[in-house]
Amino acid sequence: MTVSSFHPPQRTLMGPGPSDVNPRILEAMSRPTIGHLDPVFVSMMDQTKSMLQDAFLTKNELTMPVSAPGSAGMETCFVNLVEPGDTVIVCQNGVFGGRMKENVERCGATPIMIQDEWGSPVDPAKLEDALKAHPEASTVAFVHAETSTGAISDAETLVKLAHDHDCLAIVDAVTSLGGSPLKVDEWSIDAIYSGTQKCLSCTPGISPVSFSEAAIERIKNRKTAVQSWFMDLNLVMAYWGAGAQRAYHHTAPINALYAFHESLVILHEEGIENAWARHDRNHQAFKAGIEAMGLGFFVDEAYRLPQLNAVTLPEGIDEAAVRSALLNKYNLEIGGGLGPMAGKIWRIGLMGHASNETNVLMCLGALDAVLTDMGAKIDSGKAVGAAMKAFG
Amino acid sequence: MTVSSFHPPQRTLMGPGPSDVNPRILEAMSRPTIGHLDPVFVSMMDQTKSMLQDAFLTKNELTMPVSAPGSAGMETCFVNLVEPGDTVIVCQNGVFGGRMKENVERCGATPIMIQDEWGSPVDPAKLEDALKAHPEASTVAFVHAETSTGAISDAETLVKLAHDHDCLAIVDAVTSLGGSPLKVDEWSIDAIYSGTQKCLSCTPGISPVSFSEAAIERIKNRKTAVQSWFMDLNLVMAYWGAGAQRAYHHTAPINALYAFHESLVILHEEGIENAWARHDRNHQAFKAGIEAMGLGFFVDEAYRLPQLNAVTLPEGIDEAAVRSALLNKYNLEIGGGLGPMAGKIWRIGLMGHASNETNVLMCLGALDAVLTDMGAKIDSGKAVGAAMKAFG
Repeated sequence: MTVSSFHPPQRTLMGPGPSDVNPRILEAMSRPTIGHLDPVFVSMMDQTKSMLQDAFLTKNELTMPVSAPGSAGMETCFVNLVEPGDTVIVCQNGVFGGRMKENVERCGATPIMIQDEWGSPVDPAKLEDALKAHPEASTVAFVHAETSTGAISDAETLVKLAHDHDCLAIVDAVTSLGGSPLKVDEWSIDAIYSGTQKCLSCTPGISPVSFSEAAIERIKNRKTAVQSWFMDLNLVMAYWGAGAQRAYHHTAPINALYAFHESLVILHEEGIENAWARHDRNHQAFKAGIEAMGLGFFVDEAYRLPQLNAVTLPEGIDEAAVRSALLNKYNLEIGGGLGPMAGKIWRIGLMGHASNETNVLMCLGALDAVLTDMGAKIDSGKAVGAAMKAFG
Repeated sequence: MTVSSFHPPQRTLMGPGPSDVNPRILEAMSRPTIGHLDPVFVSMMDQTKSMLQDAFLTKNELTMPVSAPGSAGMETCFVNLVEPGDTVIVCQNGVFGGRMKENVERCGATPIMIQDEWGSPVDPAKLEDALKAHPEASTVAFVHAETSTGAISDAETLVKLAHDHDCLAIVDAVTSLGGSPLKVDEWSIDAIYSGTQKCLSCTPGISPVSFSEAAIERIKNRKTAVQSWFMDLNLVMAYWGAGAQRAYHHTAPINALYAFHESLVILHEEGIENAWARHDRNHQAFKAGIEAMGLGFFVDEAYRLPQLNAVTLPEGIDEAAVRSALLNKYNLEIGGGLGPMAGKIWRIGLMGHASNETNVLMCLGALDAVLTDMGAKIDSGKAVGAAMKAFG
């Protein structure tokens, strides 16, 4: 095997994530590494926490980045809040609700599954029925923005139902944070996890989380030890907690945290509500182009995420070949369907830094060209004009 | 709170890790992010696995980086190889053996602790006694190079004893990989984890691991599900396994893996045995300087790690004030003692990229100056000359 330094191509990332990373973030990531207990680093941690609170719209003290990808953020929520023997109601309307079930089972708890059609939001009426049927339940878990389908659920209503039945609510906000309205305190979310590589446009590998006072109370009063040492918040809190005296837990991923910090600075500069509006605006133009092409969306408009577009396929087209052509000819990455959705949709992300006018036009143009070249039954040559008109 | 980009100072990192990162690695980390299922990325993963096999001196197929810090690499080994009800013999001679105990307990297994004095290696005779007394034990776990004390244990002998008693051996090589002789296949180690931020001089956040065929056999034949979804090797293997068809598990920390890849390219260029020799040579010169100053080492020469020097303190000196002075005046980070060793030793790392002649002389000079300035009872002004003489 020949060994040499790795020089990746310059792609435009418009799949389900990672999304295009702002060059400012890449530059921040390459700054000199310092120690994880260095006083200068500790002050950066404080600023990171504060900006993350702003991004989540929360005052939760326990708001911090987990030193591992979103899947570990998910697991951090479950292993800390769920104990063996507990009952957890899991609302599933896509791949990631299924992962929640896996997490519940591995905690030795019983998942009660509520199923909704993929592409639809979670149905609050079904949750209410389940809560009535299972008074023993202690926790409700659902995905705010399903990355596998592009559907958003009404988090505020679902959390309220959970609380009405004395349950805490765990919310997956991997794809929503920074792209769609998400209000942790106003909606009284108890535990939330997200990823850096979606609408924050940071490099992947870190999972922002936040926990309410009620969640912390439950964690502190557990009857059993948290099954994960790495993710045990009783220990992690001592490192990410308040005050100058940080207790060593694990070695923080210093440079990844530089990147995360910079992504939050960028979000702070734009303002969270402006970021939501930008995602919506670019989605509207993209939608105009997709529809002008004669293609459609998998999710009803009322529940459609602006940052993750599940586009239905033209008849008789090898969708993987289209993605390969986009990647090889235009250095453009879009995503295929995940799990049961494989071969049925494309997932086209307009997330974070990648959600901009240039990308909308480029993606529509490239898709138009590749599909036309393959003889797909579309209205060729109209998409970019329609998007331009929508941008106005 | 004022929000602004974070610009860290340029430190020289000679603590217990993170160690100084080679600028080539920081530059690699800032290259454009691509998708985690991009064919170009997958080929980089293959090269990473192959170079990591070389670094561990193993042909183990399941050799890969865990997408989280060393603590998660440790937990990956335990949660996959240990089941509830198992008995695990844990050899402790420092802080990190204690973490192994925590991991065993959280897997629902029983730890049998063998204690050796901190600063001493693990005693094979005690392990043998424990193995005889506990024929029900299925696993032996120990730390190869204790980061809390700087002592190395005889991994080959300890693994052989484990195998003689039908146990698998889990080895912590966080501080040894790349700095001290470590031969996974020759010593028949079953499960090993390390960190990137020690003798590989990479940014922290990734944990290289490797598993023998016997370990994989055990994982595949578990009676219970692995308690962690994120760390379940049955799932992770499908992403890091052989073949072009990678199954999505979690989003890999793309840029952190660029950095890790580059650190392995650098190690490949130097050659693993040359790296070991370099660590030893720089330690010898450092030792000459420390002894010329009238200071000593906590660990006997026979068991002393060249990459992590536990230096005893001069009488009546506020050791934390010395570290602060080094940090503030010379931008030099050295470590204090961890746990019960706090206030009793300094931990001075000569790891990876930081193990070089310049750092040895600079650190000795700065330490000499700070201690002299504080009126410590040392032989002032002799350390650097002694090290120069040792370098020859």
